[in-house]
Amino acid sequence: MYTGKDHLRPALMTDLYQITMVAGYYLNRREAEATFELFIRSLPENRSYLVAAGLEQAVEFLLHLRFDDESVEFLRSLPVLAHLPDDFFGYLSKFRFEGDVWGVPEGTLVFPNEPILQIRAPLPQAQLVETFLLSLIHFQTLVATKASRVVQAAEGRGVIDFGTRRAHGPEAGVHAARAAFIGGCTGTSNVCAAKEFGIPAYGTAAHSWTLAFDSEQEAFEKYHAVFPDSTVLLVDTYDTMQGLRNAMSLGRKLKGVRLDSGDLLVLSREARRVLDEAGLRDTRILASGDLNEYKVKDLLQASAPIDLFGVGTEMVTSKDHPALAAVYKLVERQGPGEVIQRAKFSQHKETYPGRKQVWRSTSDEGAYGGDEIRMAEESPPRSSTGLLIPVLERGELRYRFPTLGAVRERVREALERLPPCYRRLESADTYPVTWSDELKRRFAEMRRVSVELPRGEQKDPRH
Amino acid sequence: MYTGKDHLRPALMTDLYQITMVAGYYLNRREAEATFELFIRSLPENRSYLVAAGLEQAVEFLLHLRFDDESVEFLRSLPVLAHLPDDFFGYLSKFRFEGDVWGVPEGTLVFPNEPILQIRAPLPQAQLVETFLLSLIHFQTLVATKASRVVQAAEGRGVIDFGTRRAHGPEAGVHAARAAFIGGCTGTSNVCAAKEFGIPAYGTAAHSWTLAFDSEQEAFEKYHAVFPDSTVLLVDTYDTMQGLRNAMSLGRKLKGVRLDSGDLLVLSREARRVLDEAGLRDTRILASGDLNEYKVKDLLQASAPIDLFGVGTEMVTSKDHPALAAVYKLVERQGPGEVIQRAKFSQHKETYPGRKQVWRSTSDEGAYGGDEIRMAEESPPRSSTGLLIPVLERGELRYRFPTLGAVRERVREALERLPPCYRRLESADTYPVTWSDELKRRFAEMRRVSVELPRGEQKDPRH
Repeated sequence: MYTGKDHLRPALMTDLYQITMVAGYYLNRREAEATFELFIRSLPENRSYLVAAGLEQAVEFLLHLRFDDESVEFLRSLPVLAHLPDDFFGYLSKFRFEGDVWGVPEGTLVFPNEPILQIRAPLPQAQLVETFLLSLIHFQTLVATKASRVVQAAEGRGVIDFGTRRAHGPEAGVHAARAAFIGGCTGTSNVCAAKEFGIPAYGTAAHSWTLAFDSEQEAFEKYHAVFPDSTVLLVDTYDTMQGLRNAMSLGRKLKGVRLDSGDLLVLSREARRVLDEAGLRDTRILASGDLNEYKVKDLLQASAPIDLFGVGTEMVTSKDHPALAAVYKLVERQGPGEVIQRAKFSQHKETYPGRKQVWRSTSDEGAYGGDEIRMAEESPPRSSTGLLIPVLERGELRYRFPTLGAVRERVREALERLPPCYRRLESADTYPVTWSDELKRRFAEMRRVSVELPRGEQKDPRH
Repeated sequence: MYTGKDHLRPALMTDLYQITMVAGYYLNRREAEATFELFIRSLPENRSYLVAAGLEQAVEFLLHLRFDDESVEFLRSLPVLAHLPDDFFGYLSKFRFEGDVWGVPEGTLVFPNEPILQIRAPLPQAQLVETFLLSLIHFQTLVATKASRVVQAAEGRGVIDFGTRRAHGPEAGVHAARAAFIGGCTGTSNVCAAKEFGIPAYGTAAHSWTLAFDSEQEAFEKYHAVFPDSTVLLVDTYDTMQGLRNAMSLGRKLKGVRLDSGDLLVLSREARRVLDEAGLRDTRILASGDLNEYKVKDLLQASAPIDLFGVGTEMVTSKDHPALAAVYKLVERQGPGEVIQRAKFSQHKETYPGRKQVWRSTSDEGAYGGDEIRMAEESPPRSSTGLLIPVLERGELRYRFPTLGAVRERVREALERLPPCYRRLESADTYPVTWSDELKRRFAEMRRVSVELPRGEQKDPRH
């Protein structure tokens, strides 16, 4: 990786308990198929929908997951594992993910409790991948969701991801750029994301450029000399309005100016007025500096003449809510001759049993009307689309990933179909998601049986 | 990387404007040495100090920074750069970081405006590395700081990092584990971090383990059969107190139990009482589930008999403040025959000029008394230690990195030296950091000259 050492081994980027559990399953010969579902339990304040993202990276991980010799030797050296028999470490060396995966396509709007990913594989395999899958899907979903809110607030003006420097490390910067683009951003400043994902790259100059020359005027002229067709100048290093006048000496060659501090409403109005008076109606105004969806909305409600927003920290860290309640839960497993469904009754952390499908109903006009979560084997409700589709079959790719542009377009379209009351930036209504009667019945029955059984003998009813 | 493709190229994991500025500097022959400083502008609520972290990764990045052919070709393909002359791309191909770096050793407590890193290099080199350095140092400093607060709250009980799954991607999980250990954690669940950084790895089992067997009792017995010497059981899958009794059937072999939901105060008291009554005084109680420094403090103030805390999401995302105001600013550059200092006067974003040193005064008893930021060439104040030390000289490593254990010990010791009023978890006093008179004088003079100059002619006084 960035250190020049190939030290970040994906197979080890997990919680130790995944390895201990895999050992336990393997050594107890508990390798029958199990199904796990990844979902978000609930939404924090000021989030009323989620933009699913990260599936492509999740699948690439599953396709390439291997334990190299150095990793296996390291695991063998851990005190907690050192006593385990050789054949367990041999099992790790030969490990391949051979399961089935169903997933919600990236860019789909999802809601609490709806499975985003469904893994059916031999129990140790399905268990092992939990941490990495959660990590990838949680983060991109988090940022795509936040970005879609900023983009909504910008009402058609461009939003550019400027967040790389304050994302949680270099890799997070790249994945945040991808997720932000899915959420509707116009482009990113992140060059690596531009290269890998084909996202338009944007960039101008920093304050240091201005400080590197003897005068602001000289700095602007030198920049223009090298980039005559893409001169966007940052004008607030010393005094914003004076900086603007210095930039305007380039005349019509001045593509844009960037405001990065101060009262962006006052400054953008003043800048627009001065530019227009000089006949520079095509010179665009880009605003940046700790922006988020609320500030962008306020600026535009006050008619700030801003053409483009550069949004960084708040978007790529999802600053008001930098984490979601993403979980990965066992919902059924193959027992001897029968499928055994599992539920969890921990306080506030209940899990409904069995493999599921999410059905979204749409009106004749295409508007989303609500979702119903059913058992996978239940028949579909009328006028509904199932969100989960097959992605891997026995470890082989069965899905053709759309382009990132197509994913972004899916989000745009989905948000149009989502009635406005469910996507307001604040105090949005709760989109209706219901459990099917069958699911409710089973959950209640399993809880009843669990409670009635003699203590210590919890067993779930068989399906 | 984790995709099986080596697609995350460090040299490209940056903002496009770094590349355009480097091109501009190079093509304008602006390659004289410049000094940049990386610092945190201000602290958010409930942060009164920072634990510097990430220097080792930052230095590894500088030592290994290269543009491979594919990266250079990609840059050449970008519309904004396509017109640039060949020799610029040749320059990138041969790029090496050859500058001097001073840094604050990891684990040092730092405060707003104090340089954590100081880079002196030919201007394009010093500019290019900004984004990556900020990204690395900002994130680890953020998490080490948060972790040190959680560890303080735990008052000597162990704190284990459980955050990997909700860190901002897999790499963030590894770096967060490192930073959390620096901040004082006992260990981590992250296997990769354990391997790379020698951090003790901890792990037990998840709810899925319990759900994978026909009864909780069976699940516990099977786990114990594989891990007879390290059996810590998660007891809240169905009913916590019943789960505890099931676990207790192992007798003295039960190393510990983990509580992950419900009222941790009530449950831990009840669990301790039941364990003690059964003579299992050595069985430890581990608590987890959305913990942070405030919850840990409240639990211990109420005398919750918890021996170990597993802390995840809140710590690795620094959830209450997932970003700091980390910046990287040009402070001086070599002009023809003289050093030219630079300052920035943007509203709320002022930058003081010139290379600096941070002097920390200590009382006879070793307590920190306050810091003074001076020009690098000013003489040291009495009884003070300079925090910045040389790390790279002309691109060569001149520093021997301490072990991570030594870094962690440095934090522990530093927090003891920091008077308690400056490290309270809430409403702490502001630790005194002052600018030297000389620095204040220069900044004021530069601002005066800047304002008095005819508009458009901002020049700074020469040093």
